Amino acid sequence: MNTRIKGTGCYIPSHVETNEEFGEHEFLNSDGSVFNHSNEVIIKKFSSITGIGERRYVTPEYKTSDIAYFAAERAIDNARIDKETLDYIIVAHNFGDVQHGSTQGDTLPSLAARVKNKLEIKNPKCVAYDLIFGCPGWLEGLIQAHAFIKAGLAKRCLVIGAETLSRVVDKHDRDSMIYSDGAGATVVEASNESNGILAHETASFTQEEAFFLFFGKSYKKDAADTRYIKMHGRKIYEFAITQVPKAMKACFDKTGRDIKDLKKIFIHQANEKMDEAIVDRFFRLYNTETPEKIMPMNIATLGNSSVATIPTLFDMVTRGELIGHEIKKGDCIMFASVGAGMNINAMIYEV
Amino acid sequence: MNTRIKGTGCYIPSHVETNEEFGEHEFLNSDGSVFNHSNEVIIKKFSSITGIGERRYVTPEYKTSDIAYFAAERAIDNARIDKETLDYIIVAHNFGDVQHGSTQGDTLPSLAARVKNKLEIKNPKCVAYDLIFGCPGWLEGLIQAHAFIKAGLAKRCLVIGAETLSRVVDKHDRDSMIYSDGAGATVVEASNESNGILAHETASFTQEEAFFLFFGKSYKKDAADTRYIKMHGRKIYEFAITQVPKAMKACFDKTGRDIKDLKKIFIHQANEKMDEAIVDRFFRLYNTETPEKIMPMNIATLGNSSVATIPTLFDMVTRGELIGHEIKKGDCIMFASVGAGMNINAMIYEV
Repeated sequence: MNTRIKGTGCYIPSHVETNEEFGEHEFLNSDGSVFNHSNEVIIKKFSSITGIGERRYVTPEYKTSDIAYFAAERAIDNARIDKETLDYIIVAHNFGDVQHGSTQGDTLPSLAARVKNKLEIKNPKCVAYDLIFGCPGWLEGLIQAHAFIKAGLAKRCLVIGAETLSRVVDKHDRDSMIYSDGAGATVVEASNESNGILAHETASFTQEEAFFLFFGKSYKKDAADTRYIKMHGRKIYEFAITQVPKAMKACFDKTGRDIKDLKKIFIHQANEKMDEAIVDRFFRLYNTETPEKIMPMNIATLGNSSVATIPTLFDMVTRGELIGHEIKKGDCIMFASVGAGMNINAMIYEV
Repeated sequence: MNTRIKGTGCYIPSHVETNEEFGEHEFLNSDGSVFNHSNEVIIKKFSSITGIGERRYVTPEYKTSDIAYFAAERAIDNARIDKETLDYIIVAHNFGDVQHGSTQGDTLPSLAARVKNKLEIKNPKCVAYDLIFGCPGWLEGLIQAHAFIKAGLAKRCLVIGAETLSRVVDKHDRDSMIYSDGAGATVVEASNESNGILAHETASFTQEEAFFLFFGKSYKKDAADTRYIKMHGRKIYEFAITQVPKAMKACFDKTGRDIKDLKKIFIHQANEKMDEAIVDRFFRLYNTETPEKIMPMNIATLGNSSVATIPTLFDMVTRGELIGHEIKKGDCIMFASVGAGMNINAMIYEV
């Protein structure tokens, strides 16, 4: 018994927020002091490191569960399944439904229950729950679905990653330019074929790393008591380029395959330079050069939408929407992510 | 391969909030209108239905992840295991860490990552994640741990239910008297014995039921935009007494055992009258009377602490702290819960 991806879908919010639109923001250091550079310089440097030129924000009427539902509908359509046959709906997110203009996240009921409600699935045996695991949440949801299938608890699961980071950013923080909104969904099911999920690996680093990403106050000292997504970017970078390649190798080595067989790496769209450094170091562990076109990227236009980046990227490549990248039956591919927790995970999948 | 409970622990907050302390509250109807009865009458009626005389609140310095950690430490001590051997830490909650005086829930990082950090567990292979599944979250975490054990992903897991509902109550809502704070934790592990988890059942009812419990505004109309835990109590009651007995029966029937073999039912401490009605209806499905002392209860003094009620109750009975109730090796017992989602689950366990 193995687990195969049967269908994919994503939702890319309609509002484009360009880098230029941050030109008038009052960016501050974490101590509240002003920068010695102009915003133009700050934005140029930001763009050269992260590779982000623009990102997507949801329009005011939508919340995370709404866009999770949009992505889910597309994945169900793509899978050509009867939605009433789903055994699980797993929604990975980090902040719940944050309404436009609100600072409170809403997880009552769970976002998975809301998605199931919107999908109008009647079957009570379809279990709907939320998973909080930082940016690697969608991939961890896939691993959990795989476990349920292996354990005989499920035959078919819908795994969604959805996030509206635009609702939890501090506009005085340069890092606010990184974050984006989006949703990606995947239908997986039990299969008797030998391909599908070949290996997976998960690690939680929770010593000092636990607070590398955290919920903190605005850099504007006289601002309200509201808290926002905050990160120690330099520490995350050092951590990620050290630990993620090792986890990826541990995962890949479980398959017993040759590194030359690996056709694509779908890596969490965190930061372009960091992603490239991770993948380069991964191949260096095999004493090989990073192959051309191994790494599809969409961060330039979509930013970092946390749990949504990998399922969105995978959906785009699967549908032939990312120029220069395609995957075909039999291809060995990898998913890999890193984020709040700090959590890392990876999966090897044969298409 | 089966899954056995190896150790239990709980944390009961030190602050006792008695019913009398609600005497001066300004209780309002959902439309903001005042009641025709005095608070004395309201409280007496509340107490006679729910069975709650007092409840526990955390003191200002603690958050949900703190008390989750306290319960976890006790469960690990009780299990006499090396904490570094844990493969998973699963924390069920509904609102994240809500600091005293704040209205924002904090799930960055996950509460499981915080608990692992406090436990000073170094092993990165111990995967820490949060599960949002309404009040049945702890029991669903146990089912997930069982799945990971069956699928070969884990040998030993720590499953925690922790909640500080005192931080999300609307003091103008009579239902605020129901809610309480607490944490319960359980260490489970793979076992080659035939006892342990005999059967489990889960259902998510997400049509109109999805919003029977929700995050809504204060009944005080001129209050701030803050949202609180809210419920349609009558609808929940009708739903629960109809659906929970059926799910319990579906679960018990999977074991093939005689109903007379069932020694105890650890039911979510939601509301005494509702719990009694559920259990009575369950036994009526077998054409039997509800046995004496089948149902340990602690709601009178501990209130409804959501995900924490069952593991706390089970820990108290296991440790002989609930007078008149004991369980011994070989006993067949049931866990059953219902809550936001609306989710229902049940498990049959041989001690």
